[in-house]
Amino acid sequence: MTASLSETFTTLSDGSSTSARGFRAGALAAGIKASGKPDLGIWASEAPCVAVATFTQNAFPAAPVVLSRDRLRANARAQAVAFNAGNANACNGQQGLADAREMAQLAAQHLGIAPDLVLVASTGLIGQPMPMDLVRAGIPRVEVRPDGGHEAAQAIMTTDTRPKECAVAFEVGGREVRIGGMTKGVGMIHPNMATMLAFLGTDASLEPSFAASALKRVVDRTFNMITVDGDTSTNDSCFLLANGLSGAPAIGAESSEAERFVAALEAVCTDLARKMAADGEGASKLLQVDVSGARSEADARAAARAVVGSSLVKAALHGEDPNWGRVFAAVGNSGATVDTARAALWIGSVQVAREGISTGVSKDEARAQMHGSEVTMRVDLGLGNAAARAWGCDLTEAYVVENSAYST
Amino acid sequence: MTASLSETFTTLSDGSSTSARGFRAGALAAGIKASGKPDLGIWASEAPCVAVATFTQNAFPAAPVVLSRDRLRANARAQAVAFNAGNANACNGQQGLADAREMAQLAAQHLGIAPDLVLVASTGLIGQPMPMDLVRAGIPRVEVRPDGGHEAAQAIMTTDTRPKECAVAFEVGGREVRIGGMTKGVGMIHPNMATMLAFLGTDASLEPSFAASALKRVVDRTFNMITVDGDTSTNDSCFLLANGLSGAPAIGAESSEAERFVAALEAVCTDLARKMAADGEGASKLLQVDVSGARSEADARAAARAVVGSSLVKAALHGEDPNWGRVFAAVGNSGATVDTARAALWIGSVQVAREGISTGVSKDEARAQMHGSEVTMRVDLGLGNAAARAWGCDLTEAYVVENSAYST
Repeated sequence: MTASLSETFTTLSDGSSTSARGFRAGALAAGIKASGKPDLGIWASEAPCVAVATFTQNAFPAAPVVLSRDRLRANARAQAVAFNAGNANACNGQQGLADAREMAQLAAQHLGIAPDLVLVASTGLIGQPMPMDLVRAGIPRVEVRPDGGHEAAQAIMTTDTRPKECAVAFEVGGREVRIGGMTKGVGMIHPNMATMLAFLGTDASLEPSFAASALKRVVDRTFNMITVDGDTSTNDSCFLLANGLSGAPAIGAESSEAERFVAALEAVCTDLARKMAADGEGASKLLQVDVSGARSEADARAAARAVVGSSLVKAALHGEDPNWGRVFAAVGNSGATVDTARAALWIGSVQVAREGISTGVSKDEARAQMHGSEVTMRVDLGLGNAAARAWGCDLTEAYVVENSAYST
Repeated sequence: MTASLSETFTTLSDGSSTSARGFRAGALAAGIKASGKPDLGIWASEAPCVAVATFTQNAFPAAPVVLSRDRLRANARAQAVAFNAGNANACNGQQGLADAREMAQLAAQHLGIAPDLVLVASTGLIGQPMPMDLVRAGIPRVEVRPDGGHEAAQAIMTTDTRPKECAVAFEVGGREVRIGGMTKGVGMIHPNMATMLAFLGTDASLEPSFAASALKRVVDRTFNMITVDGDTSTNDSCFLLANGLSGAPAIGAESSEAERFVAALEAVCTDLARKMAADGEGASKLLQVDVSGARSEADARAAARAVVGSSLVKAALHGEDPNWGRVFAAVGNSGATVDTARAALWIGSVQVAREGISTGVSKDEARAQMHGSEVTMRVDLGLGNAAARAWGCDLTEAYVVENSAYST
């Protein structure tokens, strides 16, 4: 969380997906993960919520994505998400859909709520049947508690090395409103509509259409602007549940508090997105790329994503090699309009290219900007006023090692 | 070269870019490469040629690309290409263009031909001024010889571990016609119009419009269907020079020999493209992916390229891990129309998925198909009749090591 955001909102210490009033969660080790770590859980609200979500655009969506998308289309309301790691329940055909439906049913029975208010999210290996015996034995044993957020954040992890949580608080109509969230990454991360799994709970009262547009706007600027490996998952799901338990007045698109809510939601999602990129599989460095001076926002977004997505930029980052030509080459491949005589590039605070050519700065000076766990680059295209920011990570030997024997 | 191709054409043993009559080449170590290896040369024809080319679509094209493209647009004729490795002459502004022009001029003087009949190709580090003192000292010392093809193929290498050459012979109107070529890769390889550098020389007599359409057709099916790392270079250039010295009748789009010529050209380019993918930076395995049953050729091409381009598929290939869900996930991200209930997948000769789900084949059986230096996969989308083939390689620790300190 940057200083400027913490001035606008209060960042809650120890924030989690259960930081907003009325949210509970719990998880346990059901035996789905071979490691024996927590892998099954429920995230729920005391009261039914306005619920919106963004899902993967992958043409092979996993069964939980199909189920949750269909339920939210029929009815923008939900009260809980049953989740698991260790098995993606993707490429499992009709049986996969039946299993996702049963998983929701089991959670609904356990919570004593209507089955169609339960959504499902799964992550893990693709193409393996869901071990439903473990799910059936596990779900009834999940204890959902107001302080269960951290437990849930552990249980959604796959190759993540650490949980990713964040919460903020701000005022709406004299009442404190909170937004809390958790995400998991960290491979097959190149979100297109949403990231692998994200759970966002707020006690604000939101009009459904505003909730949907706010989420889409924020996801486009946060989770959709990170990449780890250029592969969009079959299971990407980002849920926003709003239960209204803050008692604050409802927020709609025309409300004076609308922009405030969007900014707070963006603060949470930015923090979570950065945590995902920093924990990218094998990563040792977070890369933040700003593109300015673009002719359109679409150009700026495409250029920023191309730089963080370039294998060669990522490998150079790993070696702290200020091989800036690779950055321009990536921008040149992005489809963004460029004028080679106008483009400028900074690595950290050092300008390495101006009007498309080297500034003559020494390699050592540029390289010094690549030390440390976070590196920034800025490309100014010199053509317009549009800008965008994207996040990625370095490409390391550890990524290859981790992914060369994932299923075996 | 596969058996079926060798039945149609004669593959010349020891084929090179100077296998066709009247082509010569030479190279030397001018000192541009820090390693002291050969890095500067000339590829030339005894007689002026019909000349066509495809170039990178990168919006930051290197100076030699701009120069060569402009010359061929003005006049589809050329007689020589001056080339160097060790410096890409990209992102060098107006000075880069002046240097490329001077390089052509020096070669023209040395060969005693008109300067506008000389094209230029460079490969190496981006954003570094061309060491023109070395070029000025080197070009006049290059000896072009009919047997100089192998020497030239060595001198265009950058991170390539071996030269890539091929030549075939076939008959046109009772005369033997030859096509010989060389390419270099092997990083920043995700061609869009053409590959890094390719030189194709034939002694056929070609009508210019037919030469252009034949080259485009073949490049789309060969060099544009390989990827090493998803990064399209600033310097991609693929030249086809036809000098007519075979004495065979001219070939135009309506000639009975047109399809024959295209097939022979495709045989040469397929061989060279496979050699590039197999020698991808750090690669230990060549991956050939066939997509069939697609609704359109564009879908088939996109799906095949997505699979060979997926970091996760490439890493799994390296570890011989038959994690087939990653293949479907890549197809699902390609933009191709899919029906999840119809897709089928084979690794080698073992079918691992049918109607979108696992066939239940054992991991060991599938893994056995991933041993060896060449692995094939086939995806049948079950929707139509369009097909495409793409080539890539595995992602290895060696790729990361090589690219994390390339410029330093």
